[in-house]
Amino acid sequence: MPRARRSTHVLKPRLRVLDGDTIVLGPGKADLLATIARDGEIRAAAKRLGMSYMRAWTLLREMNRAFGRPLVETSRGGRSHGRASLTPLGKRVLVLYREMERRARAGAAPAWSKMHRLLRSRGKSRNT
Amino acid sequence: MPRARRSTHVLKPRLRVLDGDTIVLGPGKADLLATIARDGEIRAAAKRLGMSYMRAWTLLREMNRAFGRPLVETSRGGRSHGRASLTPLGKRVLVLYREMERRARAGAAPAWSKMHRLLRSRGKSRNT
Repeated sequence: MPRARRSTHVLKPRLRVLDGDTIVLGPGKADLLATIARDGEIRAAAKRLGMSYMRAWTLLREMNRAFGRPLVETSRGGRSHGRASLTPLGKRVLVLYREMERRARAGAAPAWSKMHRLLRSRGKSRNT
Repeated sequence: MPRARRSTHVLKPRLRVLDGDTIVLGPGKADLLATIARDGEIRAAAKRLGMSYMRAWTLLREMNRAFGRPLVETSRGGRSHGRASLTPLGKRVLVLYREMERRARAGAAPAWSKMHRLLRSRGKSRNT
């Protein structure tokens, strides 16, 4: 009995919001927001994503500039010094970005399903 | 009277079909297929896209391997020597890829419209 055909192909939509040549929001910036929300700290989030603290701040500044207001707020004093969290705008932007990703994937799904059937599964020829 | 707010932000979905770490189809490969269909020649298409002839063949081989059959056919002799065209499979793959792009964009449109309103137009502050 032949083994079931095992597909290894996946569709990856990457959504980027551009302002001219500048990427104001994309997968990397969205992941930074999500990781700051999770870790509550910019330095920890940057480390987890394998980027420098300076790089994380550059990305945040680019987003803040594009949206005209901060997406992340940080505490400078007291017991919460060093803590960071998303502002209401930052939360909204992240939710909308994830929704765009989900809806883009869902929109592409019917055509992707047709293309998927045309793709050869790894290590098997079309004639076996 | 204030000038109308002029937005400069655009959403660019990039769809990639992955097989593990290999991109078997993405914007670059789709553009190569489209340009070969238009120019009728791999060398001319490669030149128009700013890639080497060898690079174009590498991309074509990767696609042919993924789909198990050629997406482009070339003429080796007679008056049509050097001409290239998409096979029926190649045409189908390009049509489906463009459809995926279109549908992904359409799916993301409602959330993008909401995000777009949060973005600051270039050179104007939110308060003017």
